[in-house]
Amino acid sequence: MNEMSFLIGDVPGFTPQVGRLVSMMNYVRYTTLSAVAGLETRELDYLHDAASNSIGALLFHIAAVETWYQAATFAGRELEAGEMGEWGAALDLDESARREIRGHDLEFYRRKLEQVRTKTLDELRRRDDAWLEQQAPFWKGQPANNHFKWFHVFEDELNHRGQIRWLRKRAAAAAG
Amino acid sequence: MNEMSFLIGDVPGFTPQVGRLVSMMNYVRYTTLSAVAGLETRELDYLHDAASNSIGALLFHIAAVETWYQAATFAGRELEAGEMGEWGAALDLDESARREIRGHDLEFYRRKLEQVRTKTLDELRRRDDAWLEQQAPFWKGQPANNHFKWFHVFEDELNHRGQIRWLRKRAAAAAG
Repeated sequence: MNEMSFLIGDVPGFTPQVGRLVSMMNYVRYTTLSAVAGLETRELDYLHDAASNSIGALLFHIAAVETWYQAATFAGRELEAGEMGEWGAALDLDESARREIRGHDLEFYRRKLEQVRTKTLDELRRRDDAWLEQQAPFWKGQPANNHFKWFHVFEDELNHRGQIRWLRKRAAAAAG
Repeated sequence: MNEMSFLIGDVPGFTPQVGRLVSMMNYVRYTTLSAVAGLETRELDYLHDAASNSIGALLFHIAAVETWYQAATFAGRELEAGEMGEWGAALDLDESARREIRGHDLEFYRRKLEQVRTKTLDELRRRDDAWLEQQAPFWKGQPANNHFKWFHVFEDELNHRGQIRWLRKRAAAAAG
């Protein structure tokens, strides 16, 4: 998962379209992990201002969004109450995330990301290009296909990777 | 270009893989433009701190990166001196970008983005899935294919869209 490749294309074990999607997801994850490499807990907890999310909370959020889409696309369901206990604050990135998600080291977040990703890849291996095309009503009542939903998982990760890169510079400066 | 769709798939006029790429690029651009809708020049020029880029400079950068990859992948060349006069500061996002890219209204940036995108789509319409697979040496001496390079164009845009969303909230607060 952490290997770098500048090729979008077939990936062994996946159908052609799923492989292209997986090669994008892999590259994105590589860059996310590169963006946080070497960070200490105090930097992962750094809050730039009262409305800001910490880098740790953004990493947790990335794993939470992926978990949400696993349930939605692989099982056709919402997250259950017990799952929301683990993922809810990270999904919402609200005041409770600022309060609750802190004090963890980088390995804590890396492990979460890796556990979630392992399950995603296991499930995608068992699906095919026709599955990616399947549509269901989604945002604003418009149809979305599974290809879009998994594209969205990594496009949201990239959005937050941009914020992580920005915050990392300020966290380092604040830490002196 | 500004229409919203939650479907990744065939796009009329493009080969299958190119169409899937274009549907991702379209969605990303829709979200970028949504993220800046209604901004005034003073918000586009807002600098959060001495190292920060303005939202205007980030929009210019998004157009500049796309221009750079047009030259690289459609013509197999670097940008020429005259082109770097227009795009260089935005590509580098350095001190000169902070100094030079300001005072423009949203329409200025929208027009740049649209002009560049129109050319990209014209060129992609004339290419096919086999072209996407073509490889050449790239970063760190490793091979990259054209599919990766155009994926990278929109993944860089998403990275900065995340920063734009973050900066927009602070620019609005600073403007009172």
